[in-house]
Amino acid sequence: MSRAYDVPTLVGRAREGDARSVARLISLVENGDPALPEVAAALAPYAGGAQVVGLTGSPGVGKSTTTNELVRSLRARGKRVGVLAVDPSSPFTGGAILGDRIRMQDHTTDPGVYIRSMSSRGRLGGLAAATPQAVRVLEGAGCDVILVETVGVGQAEVEIASLADTTLVLLAPGMGDAIQAVKAGVLEVADVFVINKADRPGADATYRDIQGMLGLGERAPGDWRPLVVRATAVKAEGIDDIAAAIDKHRDWLDRTGNLLTRRERRAAVEVEAIALGVLRARIGDLRQGTALTALAACVAHGELDPYAAADELLKGL
Amino acid sequence: MSRAYDVPTLVGRAREGDARSVARLISLVENGDPALPEVAAALAPYAGGAQVVGLTGSPGVGKSTTTNELVRSLRARGKRVGVLAVDPSSPFTGGAILGDRIRMQDHTTDPGVYIRSMSSRGRLGGLAAATPQAVRVLEGAGCDVILVETVGVGQAEVEIASLADTTLVLLAPGMGDAIQAVKAGVLEVADVFVINKADRPGADATYRDIQGMLGLGERAPGDWRPLVVRATAVKAEGIDDIAAAIDKHRDWLDRTGNLLTRRERRAAVEVEAIALGVLRARIGDLRQGTALTALAACVAHGELDPYAAADELLKGL
Repeated sequence: MSRAYDVPTLVGRAREGDARSVARLISLVENGDPALPEVAAALAPYAGGAQVVGLTGSPGVGKSTTTNELVRSLRARGKRVGVLAVDPSSPFTGGAILGDRIRMQDHTTDPGVYIRSMSSRGRLGGLAAATPQAVRVLEGAGCDVILVETVGVGQAEVEIASLADTTLVLLAPGMGDAIQAVKAGVLEVADVFVINKADRPGADATYRDIQGMLGLGERAPGDWRPLVVRATAVKAEGIDDIAAAIDKHRDWLDRTGNLLTRRERRAAVEVEAIALGVLRARIGDLRQGTALTALAACVAHGELDPYAAADELLKGL
Repeated sequence: MSRAYDVPTLVGRAREGDARSVARLISLVENGDPALPEVAAALAPYAGGAQVVGLTGSPGVGKSTTTNELVRSLRARGKRVGVLAVDPSSPFTGGAILGDRIRMQDHTTDPGVYIRSMSSRGRLGGLAAATPQAVRVLEGAGCDVILVETVGVGQAEVEIASLADTTLVLLAPGMGDAIQAVKAGVLEVADVFVINKADRPGADATYRDIQGMLGLGERAPGDWRPLVVRATAVKAEGIDDIAAAIDKHRDWLDRTGNLLTRRERRAAVEVEAIALGVLRARIGDLRQGTALTALAACVAHGELDPYAAADELLKGL
C-alpha cells in the first residue's frame, strides 16, 4: 500500500469531494491497512451524517438493478449517493466476480455518486468490520444516502444488511423465497419488503405469504410494521414506491428516537467486530507458525481432542 | 441440560448404537454444553472412521430430496448413515424452520440411519465449531457415511461444507446458478457438481457452463478435476451416478494421500473455530456488562472512533 498522502490530507480531500481520495480511503479499509485506526479517528467527527439503507436478497432477485434504479431516483431528488456492493468472495482465490456490477456503470460519470464493490478477501468477519468503516468514509465525503447491497442468504450477510438505518429485503415470485426468508432470518431484519419482478406470475402469492408471516409476528405497540412494496426494477416500475417506503421508515425512526438506538446498536456490533478481528489476527499469527498444524495432525489421528488442542493454542496468545 | 448419564456412559451407549444416546450427545454439542470438552475427549479415539460427504447448494435446488435419495441408496448397500442438516437459523429468534425436513422422515424408523437437524442458535461461528463435533459423535456411533447438508450461499456455509472428505455442490437449471456458484466460492470447494432437476429446460446449458468454468481453472498435474453429474432426485434418477462419483473421489483421496491432508486441514479449522469461540465468549461476557454499550454510544455520537473503542474493550479481557 503506497502512502503518497498522509491520512489527514486524504480525509481532507475526501471531504471536498475528491473521488480518488474516497476510493483510496475505502481501499485502506478493505485491505485492513495498519493506518485504519488513524483513518477512523479522522472520520469520527462526521459520524451520523448519512442515511444508510441496506438492500439484501437471494441471488437473482434483482438487487443490482434495483440499486441502480434507486440511485437514479435519489439523484433526481438532488441527493449525493454512495453505493457499497458487498460481495462474498471466494474463500480460496480471494477474488470477487463482479460481472453484474457492470450495469452500475450507468452512474460512473456522475460526480454525485460513489460506487464501490467490496470483497471479503478472507473472512466475512473482516467484512463485517470493514463495511461500517467504508460507510463512515462515504459519510465523511458528504453522501446523503448510502446504499449497502449484500447477498442475503448467509447469516453474516444478513448481519451486514442489518447495520443500516433502514433495511430492504428483496424477494421475487416463484423462488420459494418467502419461506427461505424466514429460514435465513431476514424477516427480522427487514423494514421494507420489496417484491421485485412483480409482473411475473406468483407475485400476488408472494405478497400474501409475506403479509401472512408479518401478521404472525409478535409486535409491541409502537413497533414498526414492515412495509411491503411491489416493483419491477428492470422496467423502472415501483421505484418511487420503494423510495417513499424508505422515507416513511426514516420518519418513524426520527419521530420515535429509534434512529439513535439503532445507531448505538450498530456501533456496538462494529466495535465488537473490530475487537474480534484483533483477536482473530492474533490466532492467525499462531496459525502461520507450526503450532496449529502440529496440533491439528494430533487431532486428525485421534491422539488429541479438538478442545484440548484449542486450549493449547490459546496458551500461546 | 439434565445430566441423567455421565459422559462415558453416554458415549459407551452411543458406541453400541443407542439412538437416544447419540441424540443426547449431539444436543450437548449443539447447545455448547460445558461437558463438551469431556465429550470430545471420549470420542477422540474413534476419529476418522466415517466417510464425510458435504452437500451444499442454493435454496430450492433440491438438497433435501437428493440427501434423502442418497440415504436410500447407501442403505441399499448396507451402509450405516448419519445425516446432519445444518440450518442457518434466525439470528434474532434462535429458532430453525425445518419444514422441508419432513420428507426425511422416510428414514426415521430405520435403525441404520441417524438424522439430525442442527441450528446455529446464535452465531455461525458456533455452528462451524459444532458441526465437526457432531460428525465425531456420528463417527463414534459407527456410521460408515455421514452426509452434511448446508445451504451454500453464504461463505460460512461453504466453509462448513468444505469440512467434508468429499463435497457435492448442487445446481439447478435456470437459476443463474453457475455464475452465482463462482461468486460464493463454491466452485473451489466442489469435488462433484450435481446438476439436479436435469429434466428441466436449461440443464444442458448449466452443464456446459460448469464444464466451461472447470476448464478455465488452473489445476496442477495430479489435482482432482471435479466431476459433473446430472440427476433428477425427485424421480430418483441419477442417484447411482452421484454415489459412483463420491466413490471415485474417495478412491482418489485414498490413492493420493489427500484424505489425510484434508482431514488435518479440517482439524486445523476445527481447532481454530473452537479457540475463536472461547475468545468470543470472553467478549460476550464483556458485552453483558455496560462497557460495550457505553463505548458504542460514544462511537455513535462521534466522540470516539470504533478502533479506539475496540482497544478499550480488549483492555478488559
